[in-house]
Amino acid sequence: MSQILVVGSLAYDSIQTPAGKAPKTLGGSANYFSLAASLLSKVRVVGVVGDDYAQEDYQLLEKRDVDLSGLEKVKGKTFHWEGYYEGTLNEAKTLKTDLNVFEHFNPKLPASFKDSQFVFLANIAPELQLQVLSQVDKPKFVGMDTMNFWISSKKSALLDVLKKVNVILINEGESQMLTGAANAIAAATEISKMGPEAVVIKRGEYGFVLFHRDHGFFSLPAMTIKDVIDPTGAGDTFAGGFFGTLASMDRRPSFEDMKKACVVGTLLASFTIQDFGVKSLAKVTLNDLRSRRHDYKKIVSFEKDFVEI
Amino acid sequence: MSQILVVGSLAYDSIQTPAGKAPKTLGGSANYFSLAASLLSKVRVVGVVGDDYAQEDYQLLEKRDVDLSGLEKVKGKTFHWEGYYEGTLNEAKTLKTDLNVFEHFNPKLPASFKDSQFVFLANIAPELQLQVLSQVDKPKFVGMDTMNFWISSKKSALLDVLKKVNVILINEGESQMLTGAANAIAAATEISKMGPEAVVIKRGEYGFVLFHRDHGFFSLPAMTIKDVIDPTGAGDTFAGGFFGTLASMDRRPSFEDMKKACVVGTLLASFTIQDFGVKSLAKVTLNDLRSRRHDYKKIVSFEKDFVEI
Repeated sequence: MSQILVVGSLAYDSIQTPAGKAPKTLGGSANYFSLAASLLSKVRVVGVVGDDYAQEDYQLLEKRDVDLSGLEKVKGKTFHWEGYYEGTLNEAKTLKTDLNVFEHFNPKLPASFKDSQFVFLANIAPELQLQVLSQVDKPKFVGMDTMNFWISSKKSALLDVLKKVNVILINEGESQMLTGAANAIAAATEISKMGPEAVVIKRGEYGFVLFHRDHGFFSLPAMTIKDVIDPTGAGDTFAGGFFGTLASMDRRPSFEDMKKACVVGTLLASFTIQDFGVKSLAKVTLNDLRSRRHDYKKIVSFEKDFVEI
Repeated sequence: MSQILVVGSLAYDSIQTPAGKAPKTLGGSANYFSLAASLLSKVRVVGVVGDDYAQEDYQLLEKRDVDLSGLEKVKGKTFHWEGYYEGTLNEAKTLKTDLNVFEHFNPKLPASFKDSQFVFLANIAPELQLQVLSQVDKPKFVGMDTMNFWISSKKSALLDVLKKVNVILINEGESQMLTGAANAIAAATEISKMGPEAVVIKRGEYGFVLFHRDHGFFSLPAMTIKDVIDPTGAGDTFAGGFFGTLASMDRRPSFEDMKKACVVGTLLASFTIQDFGVKSLAKVTLNDLRSRRHDYKKIVSFEKDFVEI
């Protein structure tokens, strides 16, 4: 089993959705990613927290055998995001972003992390993504995420990162913003020309589109979840399931491997949205995942000779 | 092979999309539906056109062996819709709706139509849907569509129709408007309590959700089309492919039959959006459909033991 290195945020989020409120609940891309990926593989975290970061929140990852030796603790407060969702939960509205200790984050890898084979650069400033990547010796497979803020403010550095990764996992709206394409299909093909061999467009409640430069498209809907409590972290969970699956195979990922990884990402994300923050994801077991895989297969499968016209 | 009766609009649409303009191009739910369904089954049309309706537009359906004896021609102009799409093509904006001869449409079935086994009530006033349905002797399987206008202005009549149909095919946004549900999964289960055993939520570029009261969910994404020219009629095409498939089986549709029907609807809709109006759909052959089915299967299929975790 290969080691996955992830760099991203560890945060406290204050979230309001039609289902209720969760003040200062554990969040951040590195937490969602690690909780998901550690179900299937070994994970190493690079990040920063403040001195208010709770002991039990460290333990959540330690219980999953996540290596926290790259997690810096500095004086000050942990990154805090406050936002809300309305109606159909499709868009997070930000009320406040307190960067706090994240403002001067200067990621340095412990020597023991340099041999990481799988690397995921979660949604942080592209310069920091490059800084982390440059410290890894010879990774087998590198992935990234990004967001509208970096697309508009740091496009050039972002394009540099894109040239160095094997896969990007990106929200649909942001894929269109990055390329100017009118839909996810066009956006995925455009982004693959910018560097990555594979592009995963995350469509929220609609599932995903995977595009591979040499093998074309693979696409499936999300799991049918009726009561969505809080969509925060679904994309980072997807990325964790995706990387956890690939790293567990311990080889250079093939297109078929990535297809499987997308399905696992979809399944794990469907747990995350069933409670606030990481509450639901933190409780998921491999058996829960297997059981949901069984349900999901029924929903998206058809018989072999199914569509004979 | 069973006969499908469809009642709906025959229209001239003036459409503008980022890809260009199509002034007074052939459209209307009954046209899209019939062109799709007639590839797989026999179709009978009930509708009304004005004296401006072009001979070649009759012939388009006649060439597909569609029975037009229920198509009334009256003095005046054919129904005309003018609208446009922007950006991601997700929403049709209406500039003008000229009901014209449709304003006094009073559907009467020819005696030869009364034995129709499959009936599709396309998006027209619910009272007219009921009026048509009451004239059919003993249909085996009845479906309907509707839209925001009828949900807000004729809810009570609409609920009456819902009690009398086996399936409703409805846009995602309208399914949420009808039920107050926050997502398609919740909306589908709510609508099934209003009467129909099956509910198909049409999600445009995201595909569909099928919900059956006794069998649960089936969901797949749309075909990966990069260059969308005009989405008008995609939903009516889906319904035509859905009913054409079911009628060709000549039995009371099972859940498995409906799954197949949704896939064929998805495939045919993917042709419609590749040109303005009915232009692309009118040219589609069974071989085109088979070839696209082949491509689609690759995009949404995974190996049997695929997601072993």
